[in-house]
Amino acid sequence: MRRAFIFDVFGTCVDWRNSVARDVAAVLPEVDTLAFADAWRGEYQPAMERIRSGGRGYVALDDLHLENLHIVLERFGVSAPDSLNAAWERLDPWPDVVTGLNALRPHGLIAPCSNGSIALMARLARYGGLPWDAIVGAEIAQDYKPKPEVYLASCRALGLSPETITMVAAHNDDLEAASACGLKTAFVPRPTEYGTDQQTDLAPTRDWDYVAQDFEDLAQQVADDAG
Amino acid sequence: MRRAFIFDVFGTCVDWRNSVARDVAAVLPEVDTLAFADAWRGEYQPAMERIRSGGRGYVALDDLHLENLHIVLERFGVSAPDSLNAAWERLDPWPDVVTGLNALRPHGLIAPCSNGSIALMARLARYGGLPWDAIVGAEIAQDYKPKPEVYLASCRALGLSPETITMVAAHNDDLEAASACGLKTAFVPRPTEYGTDQQTDLAPTRDWDYVAQDFEDLAQQVADDAG
Repeated sequence: MRRAFIFDVFGTCVDWRNSVARDVAAVLPEVDTLAFADAWRGEYQPAMERIRSGGRGYVALDDLHLENLHIVLERFGVSAPDSLNAAWERLDPWPDVVTGLNALRPHGLIAPCSNGSIALMARLARYGGLPWDAIVGAEIAQDYKPKPEVYLASCRALGLSPETITMVAAHNDDLEAASACGLKTAFVPRPTEYGTDQQTDLAPTRDWDYVAQDFEDLAQQVADDAG
Repeated sequence: MRRAFIFDVFGTCVDWRNSVARDVAAVLPEVDTLAFADAWRGEYQPAMERIRSGGRGYVALDDLHLENLHIVLERFGVSAPDSLNAAWERLDPWPDVVTGLNALRPHGLIAPCSNGSIALMARLARYGGLPWDAIVGAEIAQDYKPKPEVYLASCRALGLSPETITMVAAHNDDLEAASACGLKTAFVPRPTEYGTDQQTDLAPTRDWDYVAQDFEDLAQQVADDAG
């Protein structure tokens, strides 16, 4: 296969917010579970930024999630077992994802290009039935998106040049970074990723190579191009 | 999933010899295709040894295969296009492999731990229908088996400790190396990998954790242990 589609995962493929909140509810029924999920996710960028800036060596996201859990538990004044960290391994795909990925597969290799680790991506794929051909992204680059090396290492790992790979994301900044590395781009909005009041990434900020309603629409557009 | 099975691929999962010979026959009908396949594979260990010994940085097996193709073409006094190198992406699984892997999947994550690259493993999986959860092995370790780092990096990438992972191989030396790193071991003989005159690896040389007739038998033994 001489073409590939690589995917952002958190937000683009899976609904992390409602899924994490569900697992939080099971062990912390006393807290506002969506607020807890938002606070936990809120520590995500600062934790990665220390690594991206070179202030800390690469640490897998699973470990960052656990450190961040401890921060958020303290802030909420509650306690929970470390096993709650596995909430990030049980994130529900948006309803169009599995059918859309299966429809895209005839057109190229498909792989997550996420800041999640190989271990986490493998377990998420099992949980949600995501039919990946390989797992690329942060761990093979030993750095975090949107650093260029993550996209470029992912292309090399798939044995393909950037212009034959389409980055699929619900986040314009992820596509900006991929585009700067020479990849093609596909925007799929996830307007409730951060809840019904979401103000960001409701629409494409540039004329990306593909702008699709969801993964099924993207697969149809790709099929139309090929046909 | 708190358990995994990782697999040698060339010889253990796929019949590289007859598959490569078939593709060689299509472009070089004048040569002894099995002899050509054997000669091509014969350059495999020397090429990796230069990397294992530190005499050369990590180069993906795809590139080594291409260098070795040129060596063997010259030795046979024939020429063929570089596209013949893709023969290594079209290797038939042994008949028990897909059914056996699917039967093993409920018991743990399954992943190749091969000297092949991520790109090659992804294409082989597509070709043969191998239902891997992830791809670990040489590329993530940037070194070649049987160096310990390949097994250890594979365990880390799956987020599991070595004693929860079983290395499955048709080669006793691969299992020796994995066992020395603390992994569990499973021997599955492939008595015709090198042809009907094969003299090596016809039987287990140690009391490995599992000794199975084929992948279906291995899956049954694992299921019996679990039950």
